[in-house]
Amino acid sequence: MIAEKMKPLLQNNSAIRMMFEEGKRLASIYGSEQVYDFSLGNPNVPAPDSVKQAILDILNEEESTFVHGYMSNAGYEDVRETIARSLNQRFQTNFRLENIIMTVGAASGLNIILKAILNPGDQVVTFAPYFLEYGNYVRNYDGQLVVVSPNVESFQPDLQEFAEKIGYKTKAVIINSPNNPTGVVYSRETLIQMAAVLEAKSKEIGHPILLISDEPYRELAYDGVEVPYVTKYYGNTVICYSYSKSLSLPGERIGYLVIPDSVADAEQVTAAAVIANRVIGCVNAPSLFQRVIGRCVNEKVNLEAYDRNRNLLYNRLTEYGFHCVKPEGAFYLFVKSPFEDEKEFCDICKNYHVLVVPGSSFACAGYVRISYCVSYEQIERSLPAFQKIAAECGLMAEEGRL
Amino acid sequence: MIAEKMKPLLQNNSAIRMMFEEGKRLASIYGSEQVYDFSLGNPNVPAPDSVKQAILDILNEEESTFVHGYMSNAGYEDVRETIARSLNQRFQTNFRLENIIMTVGAASGLNIILKAILNPGDQVVTFAPYFLEYGNYVRNYDGQLVVVSPNVESFQPDLQEFAEKIGYKTKAVIINSPNNPTGVVYSRETLIQMAAVLEAKSKEIGHPILLISDEPYRELAYDGVEVPYVTKYYGNTVICYSYSKSLSLPGERIGYLVIPDSVADAEQVTAAAVIANRVIGCVNAPSLFQRVIGRCVNEKVNLEAYDRNRNLLYNRLTEYGFHCVKPEGAFYLFVKSPFEDEKEFCDICKNYHVLVVPGSSFACAGYVRISYCVSYEQIERSLPAFQKIAAECGLMAEEGRL
Repeated sequence: MIAEKMKPLLQNNSAIRMMFEEGKRLASIYGSEQVYDFSLGNPNVPAPDSVKQAILDILNEEESTFVHGYMSNAGYEDVRETIARSLNQRFQTNFRLENIIMTVGAASGLNIILKAILNPGDQVVTFAPYFLEYGNYVRNYDGQLVVVSPNVESFQPDLQEFAEKIGYKTKAVIINSPNNPTGVVYSRETLIQMAAVLEAKSKEIGHPILLISDEPYRELAYDGVEVPYVTKYYGNTVICYSYSKSLSLPGERIGYLVIPDSVADAEQVTAAAVIANRVIGCVNAPSLFQRVIGRCVNEKVNLEAYDRNRNLLYNRLTEYGFHCVKPEGAFYLFVKSPFEDEKEFCDICKNYHVLVVPGSSFACAGYVRISYCVSYEQIERSLPAFQKIAAECGLMAEEGRL
Repeated sequence: MIAEKMKPLLQNNSAIRMMFEEGKRLASIYGSEQVYDFSLGNPNVPAPDSVKQAILDILNEEESTFVHGYMSNAGYEDVRETIARSLNQRFQTNFRLENIIMTVGAASGLNIILKAILNPGDQVVTFAPYFLEYGNYVRNYDGQLVVVSPNVESFQPDLQEFAEKIGYKTKAVIINSPNNPTGVVYSRETLIQMAAVLEAKSKEIGHPILLISDEPYRELAYDGVEVPYVTKYYGNTVICYSYSKSLSLPGERIGYLVIPDSVADAEQVTAAAVIANRVIGCVNAPSLFQRVIGRCVNEKVNLEAYDRNRNLLYNRLTEYGFHCVKPEGAFYLFVKSPFEDEKEFCDICKNYHVLVVPGSSFACAGYVRISYCVSYEQIERSLPAFQKIAAECGLMAEEGRL
């Protein structure tokens, strides 16, 4: 009964499901306190209190048929206006409400913009390591994902290979900074160089290349690092934003697209994106949470908690002999596996009840992703296990024998 | 820049947008009290108070990271269990939580099941008049919508033409009862006959045909009419449900799919639908409203308000000489146009500031859809206009001259 296109997805899915099952199995045997699950990207820091207050205020102050009703497929105009103004204030941009489309999270935003622009066979370039769903999103519209190899020195993009991989079929590029899974933030310099490549290549191939910036981790940046606003470096850029991490609302599916006037055929692309939002069945972003965003546009979760986790885990793991680029954003460490086949390393971790994700799940074998969006206590409790893992992998002697 | 597939959608869209603009234009000239907009399906009856109470209770009783967090792509298990039990109690079915997938409304449910099963070129049959988005949903997955002509006597489905239109390429059938735009409810007898056709034809073509029942209007039925539960008449049925109308939450995008065990390859279809939910970018249905449904599963909006509207509008319009099958469900009247070209009739209506939707927007020319999900006062205020329209169309003399 099922579609041919779904069959490979079903096969892959069972691998991921097996990992979940393994976590559950371990927890049922040893107790959940004795299992250190670093595999998920589910924020453990609660939404700010202002979100709850906003919901209460909205329910008291606004009409039910308005709060829970249909609005334009692009979203409530006042909310889009509020977002545009907030962006303009923060990034000295020049957006109007017409540049903002409210979406069912960034994942839906990505689907909408890809549906709006992709013809079958069009290529979309991205940089390994990357969130493997990008491939599924691109294939939804019969496009082809082209992957630039990881630059394992810094995990900044390899712009030379990037230029080589752009060709006549290239329609778009997806970037993700702060990055899942590396935590790397693309610098201003990187974006300037990337824009130069895109402009030169657009001329060469004779059509514009759309840069799609997937930004669910924008607000999760540490040590005062700048996360440059991409539309300022390359005009033909669309932003996919999500409040999943910045307000800890991943289940609510709320985000937005920014389609600036500087995008090629901006008016048509915007109209197509709004229609795509409707016909893929979203119709509109959830209404109550649109109104919440209207009141909480400048709020953020408690970043200090993530920062504390980051420092504890990074400092200890490197102390134990693990290698890792220090993440400047998001809530992941991307740690080099002591073995070429990182799945072997994942298995050793599992023996110590530590669950991490193999880098091949991000098209970057030889590494593992460790999510630190967990409690500080879980990290503290897990440290002896990481120490034993390091010893078993020959990175350091066991603590007692140092 | 935009995809070829989006271009016809952009053209159609401008026609709909023009209608909205026309409504706004009239309201700005004559005042919104003097414009009678019957064009939209946006519920005017507020959500039950229990929905607000449920939100308040959830925010007070449950953890933020749980309420707003990720869960399984299929939805919270306890909520799916609650829905399965409620259905079993109401319809003597035998569902388990595994048969329920929470979705971003019924529109998303339709997309998910179509993505799960359609191969390019597969045909999906539906009955005119129908919600034109069905065609867009089917084309999203490169399927082809095949339309059975309207049976304008009763607007029950023409089962003879139905049987003739099923062929080897038929993969699925979409029905919608209570129906948008006719308000007709498919009887038990109709479903028994439809199931017989489907079973005979499945054998003939050598593969199962999936019946997809789109049920956003299930709870909106009047005069005690039964809305039979379709899975009981044909095992190979998937239900797409939405709380948009039953709880007046259309903007919140909350609904579910039921995939019974009796569906062909049920386990694979369910797994594919859950993956489709993820990869089309929804990821999961909005989390807070899933939890609301868990607490409000047996709640309903005030149906009496719609019923009062229905009776007032139906009685008066037929009194004025208009022809219409009395709707037993939903919140629409589907009225015969006095002229062959119903757009001419729509234009006359517009001259009296009455906005209605041409039947050709539902693949059924010669009729217009009048939404009565408006205030009783709007209907009362509009009656003199309808009387004048009837007179101008030669259906009756003007009131003064009777």
